[in-house]
Amino acid sequence: MDIKTNQGNSEVEVICIGTELLLGNILNSNARWLAEELAALGLPHFRQLVIGDNPIRLKDALLESAKRARFLITTGGLGPTPDDLTKESIAEAFNSPLEEREEILKDIQNKLKISSKISSSNTKQALFPPGAEIIPNRTGTAPGMIWSPNPEFTILTFPGVPSELKDMWRQTGAPWLRNNSEKTQIFISRVMHFAGIPESTLAESIEDLLDSNNPTIAPYAGLGQVKLRLTAKGESLDKANALLKPLEKKLCDRMGLKFFGLDNDSLASVVLDLLRKRGEKLVVAESCTAGGVGAALAAIPGASDVFIGGIIAYSNETKQKMLEVPLACLEEHGAVSDDVVQKMALGAQEKLGADWAIAISGVAGPSGGTISKPVGLVHIAVAGPQGCKAVSENFGSHRERIEIQQLSVVRSLDRLRLDLLERS
Amino acid sequence: MDIKTNQGNSEVEVICIGTELLLGNILNSNARWLAEELAALGLPHFRQLVIGDNPIRLKDALLESAKRARFLITTGGLGPTPDDLTKESIAEAFNSPLEEREEILKDIQNKLKISSKISSSNTKQALFPPGAEIIPNRTGTAPGMIWSPNPEFTILTFPGVPSELKDMWRQTGAPWLRNNSEKTQIFISRVMHFAGIPESTLAESIEDLLDSNNPTIAPYAGLGQVKLRLTAKGESLDKANALLKPLEKKLCDRMGLKFFGLDNDSLASVVLDLLRKRGEKLVVAESCTAGGVGAALAAIPGASDVFIGGIIAYSNETKQKMLEVPLACLEEHGAVSDDVVQKMALGAQEKLGADWAIAISGVAGPSGGTISKPVGLVHIAVAGPQGCKAVSENFGSHRERIEIQQLSVVRSLDRLRLDLLERS
Repeated sequence: MDIKTNQGNSEVEVICIGTELLLGNILNSNARWLAEELAALGLPHFRQLVIGDNPIRLKDALLESAKRARFLITTGGLGPTPDDLTKESIAEAFNSPLEEREEILKDIQNKLKISSKISSSNTKQALFPPGAEIIPNRTGTAPGMIWSPNPEFTILTFPGVPSELKDMWRQTGAPWLRNNSEKTQIFISRVMHFAGIPESTLAESIEDLLDSNNPTIAPYAGLGQVKLRLTAKGESLDKANALLKPLEKKLCDRMGLKFFGLDNDSLASVVLDLLRKRGEKLVVAESCTAGGVGAALAAIPGASDVFIGGIIAYSNETKQKMLEVPLACLEEHGAVSDDVVQKMALGAQEKLGADWAIAISGVAGPSGGTISKPVGLVHIAVAGPQGCKAVSENFGSHRERIEIQQLSVVRSLDRLRLDLLERS
Repeated sequence: MDIKTNQGNSEVEVICIGTELLLGNILNSNARWLAEELAALGLPHFRQLVIGDNPIRLKDALLESAKRARFLITTGGLGPTPDDLTKESIAEAFNSPLEEREEILKDIQNKLKISSKISSSNTKQALFPPGAEIIPNRTGTAPGMIWSPNPEFTILTFPGVPSELKDMWRQTGAPWLRNNSEKTQIFISRVMHFAGIPESTLAESIEDLLDSNNPTIAPYAGLGQVKLRLTAKGESLDKANALLKPLEKKLCDRMGLKFFGLDNDSLASVVLDLLRKRGEKLVVAESCTAGGVGAALAAIPGASDVFIGGIIAYSNETKQKMLEVPLACLEEHGAVSDDVVQKMALGAQEKLGADWAIAISGVAGPSGGTISKPVGLVHIAVAGPQGCKAVSENFGSHRERIEIQQLSVVRSLDRLRLDLLERS
């Protein structure tokens, strides 16, 4: 069997390093994230390997990859502990020494707030092969590197911590790949976000468009949301854009209100923007999500000019005490009912003095379900200047507690979005 | 570089097949699930590969794997469409024909409820190498197989649909591996969780133990938390346990209160358990985390017998209105101060009628920082039956908003845990 060697190509491979991945301790979300990023850059990516913290196996894998690929991206194994061996293995595989970089050492010292001597375990994070370009790590102590052991093979190393990987990729990795891959065409890519529609239904209603070759459309299913990544290639930015724009418009027209945002938009950011334009304030009253909607809103920078707070009413007593939900209403309808969520929303709206309120109450499980109110049943109310509406959703009792909570957050923000659009 | 060949070993490799995985369209949850299952079987598993629906690359990967491993598990590529090529590639790689199995054809016919002729695309699902053992698929039309192209290498194929894979694994795959792997040893594994200590400091204080070969210790860094996985092997469960227990005790003694839980414990579950034992109730008052602590608590099943609710006080007005924080206090000290978080905690404790309260106020950024109160500064108060204490933490202005919020959640739960342990 002949393995294809690199012939001026731009083939990329990914190696995720960490015994914890092979033991199943953690989900390899980095691999998916990188896959999507590489697709957006228009870089062909044919293999992803997961390997443990074992220097011999890692060296084997590095040498195999060097035979096939133009670029290799590694994640993990850059930490200070003895089982972090990515750089050491790379250096050994390609017979290179490792040299201490003084400026990196100083930076690590600053980050660890150590005035005098740094421990030997952190010192090793400042070691790099001569000639390696540093990928700065703004948050952690593990910088990455871009290093070419030979002119036809370049390795880019990143830490396994997702937030560090993502920041370093965006700041340094992706721009570098964009400039250094031998592409004759420009790739542009746009993400369109949809809510309130299952992936299969969305896929069916755009079936005629899915086979398109340029631009391509790739669907990605999320919890309660779907996104489509549109990627167009052309000789220039203008030509690629001229292909992308009509498709974007077609999808936008066809999907109507199911379409809620582009690229980095989220339901929370869209809702905050709509309210900001109206100069209105939002509060929440959360039972089964217990702060999940609030946290989703506060995750968006600048949320505080719209979102002012809320009540987490996890017990019935708190619903009465803080939201003025009448005991009779709780007894008659139960905490998971249209009546109670409406009272919760109106209570929060009035008590905190806001224009809009979201209220949620549901059975997140795994226990507590009944025949009439099964696990997965969630009631959502949205109160606004023109009144209050409630809906119920059954997310299904097969779902995990945390999924039901997250779906409730997504669905409640989408209800508010639809209400705001209806009334604008 | 010499690749180790199989010498009567039980090494396992996994290949996940599907272009959708390489495009990042879906998360490879099968890989994690199989990894955990293999760890539970005590089967050493050193490589996971993801590869697209490309027969040439797949054949390369199969032949490479045959050189190294005793068992290969594949997922995906068993469907009826032309890009499902797993069995075809396996047969070609090992020079075997494929033969139609009549009983499988009939079963597919039954499942598709077709009385007469089956389409050619489904016919190919009934093709297998001579001598292959079938892994029945009770729900779908894609059976798997257990096939040994040579006496020292066995391939087990499964579909990519997670529910089908899991059922087939449990019914046929796992029992077969248990009976056919040449294991002389049992593996057991335990996770220990730590908080309030950086990974590098933890690693240094157990440096003398990290080189241990049996049991092994592997550290995993999380946001504000570190975990250690201890894995011991022995001829029997008792012997493996006899190795694991003393190490667990040693780590526990050495790390003191930094150690907070085992296996599936989280800070939230530990805090809830401590309070449950005392028969006490907990509330939260959250500014910059805006519900993050509440959501973390509510993620734990059964939280409601301890956690009763809280106030999200995202604006100063809400802090006054709902938590009785005096305007003078806000004006004098600022919202991010020991004084204000103490007032918030005491306000929540009293208003909601709880024994304990956590309060958080901080500068999550990216804007809003000043010289005296930079981005990353967070004040945390814990109020209990014996009084209220506040601390400040500076997580660093280089961190992302969401990280500062998550670190605040972790740190506040840990403060409460330490307070509870001090007073018990």
